[in-house]
Amino acid sequence: DTREQLQPGTYRTVIKSKFIDGNLEIAQTVLDGESKKEILLSSYLCHPSMANNELSGPLVLLGLYHRIKTWTRRRYTYRFAMHPETIGSLGLLYLKGDHLKENLVSGLVINCMGGKPNELVFKHSRNDDSLLDKLLYHLNNHGYNHENIKFSPLSGSDERQYNSPGFQLPVCCVSRCFHVGYDEYHTSLDDKENMGIKTLLDSIDKLEKVLIALEQTATFENKFPYGEPNLGKRGLYPTLSFYSKERVNQLEELNHIKMLLNYSDGKCDTVDIANLLKCSVVDMETAIHKLENQSLIKML
Amino acid sequence: DTREQLQPGTYRTVIKSKFIDGNLEIAQTVLDGESKKEILLSSYLCHPSMANNELSGPLVLLGLYHRIKTWTRRRYTYRFAMHPETIGSLGLLYLKGDHLKENLVSGLVINCMGGKPNELVFKHSRNDDSLLDKLLYHLNNHGYNHENIKFSPLSGSDERQYNSPGFQLPVCCVSRCFHVGYDEYHTSLDDKENMGIKTLLDSIDKLEKVLIALEQTATFENKFPYGEPNLGKRGLYPTLSFYSKERVNQLEELNHIKMLLNYSDGKCDTVDIANLLKCSVVDMETAIHKLENQSLIKML
Amino acid sequence: DTREQLQPGTYRTVIKSKFIDGNLEIAQTVLDGESKKEILLSSYLCHPSMANNELSGPLVLLGLYHRIKTWTRRRYTYRFAMHPETIGSLGLLYLKGDHLKENLVSGLVINCMGGKPNELVFKHSRNDDSLLDKLLYHLNNHGYNHENIKFSPLSGSDERQYNSPGFQLPVCCVSRCFHVGYDEYHTSLDDKENMGIKTLLDSIDKLEKVLIALEQTATFENKFPYGEPNLGKRGLYPTLSFYSKERVNQLEELNHIKMLLNYSDGKCDTVDIANLLKCSVVDMETAIHKLENQSLIKML
Repeated sequence: DTREQLQPGTYRTVIKSKFIDGNLEIAQTVLDGESKKEILLSSYLCHPSMANNELSGPLVLLGLYHRIKTWTRRRYTYRFAMHPETIGSLGLLYLKGDHLKENLVSGLVINCMGGKPNELVFKHSRNDDSLLDKLLYHLNNHGYNHENIKFSPLSGSDERQYNSPGFQLPVCCVSRCFHVGYDEYHTSLDDKENMGIKTLLDSIDKLEKVLIALEQTATFENKFPYGEPNLGKRGLYPTLSFYSKERVNQLEELNHIKMLLNYSDGKCDTVDIANLLKCSVVDMETAIHKLENQSLIKML
Repeated sequence: DTREQLQPGTYRTVIKSKFIDGNLEIAQTVLDGESKKEILLSSYLCHPSMANNELSGPLVLLGLYHRIKTWTRRRYTYRFAMHPETIGSLGLLYLKGDHLKENLVSGLVINCMGGKPNELVFKHSRNDDSLLDKLLYHLNNHGYNHENIKFSPLSGSDERQYNSPGFQLPVCCVSRCFHVGYDEYHTSLDDKENMGIKTLLDSIDKLEKVLIALEQTATFENKFPYGEPNLGKRGLYPTLSFYSKERVNQLEELNHIKMLLNYSDGKCDTVDIANLLKCSVVDMETAIHKLENQSLIKML
Repeated sequence: DTREQLQPGTYRTVIKSKFIDGNLEIAQTVLDGESKKEILLSSYLCHPSMANNELSGPLVLLGLYHRIKTWTRRRYTYRFAMHPETIGSLGLLYLKGDHLKENLVSGLVINCMGGKPNELVFKHSRNDDSLLDKLLYHLNNHGYNHENIKFSPLSGSDERQYNSPGFQLPVCCVSRCFHVGYDEYHTSLDDKENMGIKTLLDSIDKLEKVLIALEQTATFENKFPYGEPNLGKRGLYPTLSFYSKERVNQLEELNHIKMLLNYSDGKCDTVDIANLLKCSVVDMETAIHKLENQSLIKML
């Protein structure tokens, strides 16, 4: 091949390029939820012929779409975005920036989902105060082993545009190795070796698990906030008074209910409440559901 | 007696009850102070035939009433409340909720004042930010040995209603043992053994001492805030310039005066100021009094 | 001399004084900067026949005036004030209090600049939240060895009037020994021994260095906050892609630029941004200057 035949010496590279009129193509789709509040899942196409960075991102995005579509219930609305890196997210922000400023709860830029490290690494959003940011720290105390790192605009991908000062959208970034790099990064050696299907599925599993926890993460308002509402007549009070396994479960649920009622003041979210109880927000799912069904609390 | 004669076996208990029309009786009385701002002292009657829980509460409430009535000066207005537990406090909130939201500085639900532990235990208010909450932590650094525990809606008494999210009234709860319980709790064995008169008097003494400290705990506004007012012509500057015991006392009082003047900006309260000086708010009483007399500061 | 000839015994001192009509003389001068925001440098004349306390203060103030006058650029406007202690600063506040409340960024009362301790000691402002307060802590992490102590109204000088609750102007105080005192303090022995010219010059050098750092300490607003602006076409992107000393410098500057752009949201100041980057605010001078020149950021 030509490169092999070159003699030693200094060469000058000529790159021929030209400007042509065209369009910027960006793709979006939405899975509606009960609330207009949105979760943004975003990946990008810069050089998708390379495997881990970057085909793994779009593949995991696609996998999550098919998972979330089958959920029996979605509190949040999910927006899926795919586009050329940087300029594509700027295009999305041009079209949907105001909408996202009003409705976005949290977002996630997804790439490098197939590499070697076993655990996911979440780069948090600039202001590190969204529900997903908070949840990610919380879950670390309850058996989730992902790593959390701080936002930085110095490197990274589309999260830099989403988190620019005019938007400050709470978009995190998830990868297995983006922040540390790997030898094959940005070379033709970034191939299937760096992106096993099994690892991609593991990424989808882990992200879905986080998103399911995020579904329980919200700020509710107690609709009967003046004193404690009568729980017995609403079927929310334990009917057993002797000690048994069932009684223990009923009491745990009653504790969740009492905490949710007292602290759902429109300011505390369910992670705050779970932290007060030193339990996982995931464990409060049943209590949240029952209180919603009885119209005792309503998501803000 | 009948229970002794029963044969071993499983019994079914029949409780005969009926609904009758009637009234909910709740008792209140007020001792006016210089300010409309209120301190609520609240106890309850659920099963007052039992001693420590709960006759001790009403007895201590009564004792405090007679003590506070004799104070030569009351900055705050004191409201005393007694009623059936839970439903009675809901009744009080129905009648006085708006008034209390506007005027309540801090409150205290009182029960289990006769038990064995030597020190009082204060369960703080939900938001833990009222003057009494702050004072209770402060006094621990200045020789008061009570214990402080966090609010929880999971157990307790009327403080759960006062601290419900629609009211969020800063009402604490005080007892000697309510949070840990005792073997005779809620049985006919909760008798005089668990509630000596000497212990009740000790409870009254300790609570009065806290309330006297609370009288010095307020946010004042410096009425001459532009530069330091002339202290000499108001008789507030030491007249001795050589070292003596009296001079030391005068200097300490001068320090209190300077701190109160500089930090009484309508935001810092006297506990903040005492903390800056690393002294007890109780020790600043004379300085506060002199500055009030000279109309240099005014309670907000 | 007379005192030597006095016999042992108790004497009564007669101090003859009278009230005369007159004027309070206070001196001010201003060096204009690009912004109306002001830095106040203030010293005083109480008994200027004594050396360290207090002629050293006016001398250092004068020295700083001549230094700052020669700066090629001043972001801030500098106000220099000299007057009798306490009553003079009250006079200045009477005339300029409203102006200073609107425009003052930070201030500094200067005295005892000639004493023995090698390092300057800064007594911070009452609220300890101005740009100078923040900068002084920051510089300690980057090779500046001054000491920081908290505000107190119990002793000190004109900073007590500037920081009185009605004004709360963020005026610090700097000295070498004012807070600990020295044996010759307030006696005729406070002479040239306590105020070498070399030490005065060292004080001027150190204060000028702090003020130069303060010139880089400001809150900027990114004028192109929606996504990252194109740096290449503005000459702000490194032109070298191989590793070299120059490339390393270019990358460091690029990091400063990226951080300044992302965090200049009108809330974060440059010390916040430098802290995020773990660098000194002084090191960001070039990047700040280039971004200002390109109208990408503007000081608030």
